[in-house]
Amino acid sequence: MATATKAKPAKAANTAPEIAFTLKTAALRNLFEMTREIADLWAIQGLLGWDQQTQMPPGANEVRSEQMATLEAIVHAKRSAPALGKAIAKAEAALEAHPERATVADRALVREARRMYDQATKLPEQFVRDFTVATATGYDIWHKAREANDFAAFAPILERIVELVRQRSRYLDPQASDPYAPLFDEYEPGMPLEIAEKALEQLRKATVPLLRRVRAAKQVEAGFMEGTFPHDDQIKLSRRFLEIIGYSFEHGRLDLTAHPFEQSIGSPDDVRVTTRVHEDDVVSCLMSVMHECGHAHYEQGIDPALKRTILGGGTSSGIHESQSRTWENIIGRSEAFWQAHYGEMQRAFPRNFSKVPVEDFVRAINRVGESLIRVEADELTYNLHIIIRFEIERDLIGGKIQVRDLPEIWKAKYRDYLGVTPPNDALGVMQDVHWSSGLFGYFPTYSLGNCYAAQFAAAMRKAHPDTDARLAKGETGFIREWQREHIHRWGTIFQADELCRRVTGESLNPKYLIAYLEEKFTRVYGLK
Amino acid sequence: MATATKAKPAKAANTAPEIAFTLKTAALRNLFEMTREIADLWAIQGLLGWDQQTQMPPGANEVRSEQMATLEAIVHAKRSAPALGKAIAKAEAALEAHPERATVADRALVREARRMYDQATKLPEQFVRDFTVATATGYDIWHKAREANDFAAFAPILERIVELVRQRSRYLDPQASDPYAPLFDEYEPGMPLEIAEKALEQLRKATVPLLRRVRAAKQVEAGFMEGTFPHDDQIKLSRRFLEIIGYSFEHGRLDLTAHPFEQSIGSPDDVRVTTRVHEDDVVSCLMSVMHECGHAHYEQGIDPALKRTILGGGTSSGIHESQSRTWENIIGRSEAFWQAHYGEMQRAFPRNFSKVPVEDFVRAINRVGESLIRVEADELTYNLHIIIRFEIERDLIGGKIQVRDLPEIWKAKYRDYLGVTPPNDALGVMQDVHWSSGLFGYFPTYSLGNCYAAQFAAAMRKAHPDTDARLAKGETGFIREWQREHIHRWGTIFQADELCRRVTGESLNPKYLIAYLEEKFTRVYGLK
Repeated sequence: MATATKAKPAKAANTAPEIAFTLKTAALRNLFEMTREIADLWAIQGLLGWDQQTQMPPGANEVRSEQMATLEAIVHAKRSAPALGKAIAKAEAALEAHPERATVADRALVREARRMYDQATKLPEQFVRDFTVATATGYDIWHKAREANDFAAFAPILERIVELVRQRSRYLDPQASDPYAPLFDEYEPGMPLEIAEKALEQLRKATVPLLRRVRAAKQVEAGFMEGTFPHDDQIKLSRRFLEIIGYSFEHGRLDLTAHPFEQSIGSPDDVRVTTRVHEDDVVSCLMSVMHECGHAHYEQGIDPALKRTILGGGTSSGIHESQSRTWENIIGRSEAFWQAHYGEMQRAFPRNFSKVPVEDFVRAINRVGESLIRVEADELTYNLHIIIRFEIERDLIGGKIQVRDLPEIWKAKYRDYLGVTPPNDALGVMQDVHWSSGLFGYFPTYSLGNCYAAQFAAAMRKAHPDTDARLAKGETGFIREWQREHIHRWGTIFQADELCRRVTGESLNPKYLIAYLEEKFTRVYGLK
Repeated sequence: MATATKAKPAKAANTAPEIAFTLKTAALRNLFEMTREIADLWAIQGLLGWDQQTQMPPGANEVRSEQMATLEAIVHAKRSAPALGKAIAKAEAALEAHPERATVADRALVREARRMYDQATKLPEQFVRDFTVATATGYDIWHKAREANDFAAFAPILERIVELVRQRSRYLDPQASDPYAPLFDEYEPGMPLEIAEKALEQLRKATVPLLRRVRAAKQVEAGFMEGTFPHDDQIKLSRRFLEIIGYSFEHGRLDLTAHPFEQSIGSPDDVRVTTRVHEDDVVSCLMSVMHECGHAHYEQGIDPALKRTILGGGTSSGIHESQSRTWENIIGRSEAFWQAHYGEMQRAFPRNFSKVPVEDFVRAINRVGESLIRVEADELTYNLHIIIRFEIERDLIGGKIQVRDLPEIWKAKYRDYLGVTPPNDALGVMQDVHWSSGLFGYFPTYSLGNCYAAQFAAAMRKAHPDTDARLAKGETGFIREWQREHIHRWGTIFQADELCRRVTGESLNPKYLIAYLEEKFTRVYGLK
């Protein structure tokens, strides 16, 4: 049955006036309607992916891929439709003619529509096809080469992928001074690469000596963390902590997957998280759940006025990661938080924890490991893993280094920054899937997320100087409220850099993360 | 990324040549490609609905409805596109010019495309909108009126709906001699209404006196069925029986919902079933699971060549119901089946069954109840519930009776056919949702399903005269194989009546069901 989808922006009673769309011109109303359809289809794509990871019968993988390809082709056709291009141009003209008639939401709608349309139209169809084939092949070869610890087998396809990624960059912005910049901009739109680059450099310069001091100090006692922690008990505890930190099961759910993730199904009303359990590790699942819940807080906190629009998601990879890192690390590994909730852990696993004081537990979950593998890294060394990848991929795309030299460059950087040398390439340069899939420009957003997180936390502590005292009393709602007001509800209205300036009064600045890490690890390791 | 969906019909090694598409003309290939996209979108619609019923967080209902409306509008646009109309006409011309170049699958593709296109284009948009509004209102009013047992409150909107349904019939086929026929044809395409009408009349004439004899006989002892049967034990047992009767969990899953259903996500690779548990009833959940598994067997058994095409589902509501009724009733309530599997039931619930012989158990699950409510009815009285609704809705659409007279007509028919009188309209004429939602023409397919089921079973027993002996040894695979060969794998290639003739050598004939019911209830009740 034909059901007309009319341009009726959802406006909840509590929507701030600057978030609401006003759509005072026909051009804006038309654009709103055209992009709403795309937003709904994105949501449906999200559901197809979520179902594939969590519920789908194992034998349905092939047909699901084909269904997803069909829907993606429809979405692509809509994103790149000449009619949409014209509608955007008209809306841009209307904005220019009568800027006073538009809210920030109206303006952001046009900006994001333009961005989405350009992304879809700048890459020629044949190029997209070549890229898809190369990265599908790349993934397969990487997978086998890693198993066989055979970088030479992986190098040729990686060279081909790097060449295509350079081409991609030229299509996206032929004028770019640095070919890495247009790639980075896909994930952290509006954030100048130079700012990010400088931030990561400062972070490296501060972290490397701090790590050396930590390595030289007396190591943290954590024998009590060893044991077997049954699957169901861990899931029960994880659910309990989701409730404690305010995840809404009315608008979400927790499922099991091989790799944890958060997926919004198109609105704050339906934001799902997943996790997995290692029975020999009591905090891995719990911290992963806190991490995904940080992502979910963001999506569940977006203003209802942005529901079912192309502004209805988080604004960038880095800002999204800042929210997950806040709940996983800044709150989830803080002594104040555990003062309130350690009893839950002790009751769940009394054999391990009934006689261990909370201070020892918190030190244990903050200890710094050997750190060969990124996904297992602690809070201090994690950024160095990222910075290594960022430096390498930037120089690779820039043509300053060659694929064949990657294993040696990787090992040298690991030795210099982290003080470890990978025993082989499988545990070294081939440990991550990203490059084999053509994903360049994404890595830095992980560490930018940590930078934003610390910078936001500093701003929040100004507004709530009693943060630790309240955390220690078991309160977390005030943090989420602060995040919602300043970050979450705005969805994609502001791009990352502008959002950061609005929230903290300045652009991205790594000094907050550096100070946070200095303070924490000085305390945990009793450094002088 | 743009992904081209090419016309590459899936052809598995074991596909019968007559099922495979050959697509020897450009017109056919073009139509194949256009309809493939629609088939994939139908699958995605199936997933959205399944998720809504089984997994979706409760707070997401509104936004999900809107996402579904967006997708439905896209599907409707594709189904009614003038380009599709032209492609169908070209394919029809190609078939006529060179009939020898097409397989039955090719021909069925064109037939189903025509049917789908006509359905989508015959109803004017304004009419569809009016119908949607009226039935949405109708559902709400029905729900409240039933609660309040107030038929007068429901009558005006039902009159409006009936008027719209008559109009719908005129749009679908202005030449129809009986306005009910085009409605019936939506669910049981190609089955002449007269054949169905005659079958149901014969069935009524045989069932009413049989029921009287059952009522007059000594009633079945079933006190041992009373007790509390824990939820998890029932689900465990249901899963066990799904395995026993060959449901593929590799290509399916079992979930919980308020109302059980089966949902194919677009291919035999992904066919899901749901159930619910009443803890005071040990067979309700189990039989419901066997029922849905019958539907699932059909969908899981469709030939891979029809995957992701508009022929990739069951051919009609009645044929689909025949498969569910076969596994629920003809097999699932047979003594032969329980001779093999009663031990599972005894081990699951020893307090109730360890001392009860299998014969008594089988009699108990076949006992005939008072039967006021259709969805709780036993195998014998169920058809009378359906026949009453069929007679009433046919006469209502035909203008022979009026909405205001329904309560009295209902009561009279219940008294005459079933020997019971509903104490009120909530338990009478308002018990079902169908009419309030504009669903007319669907009811008869439930009983046609029972007729087909018995007719198919008779044909199968000719091929496998040792059916009972094999069932009693725990075999069921040979039944599914027979069904697959003769029914399942054909998908929508043959319409119901043609399929019935191919499988059984004759058109729909109720004598098989009548004989089956006579034999069974004579035995269960020791009738002379």
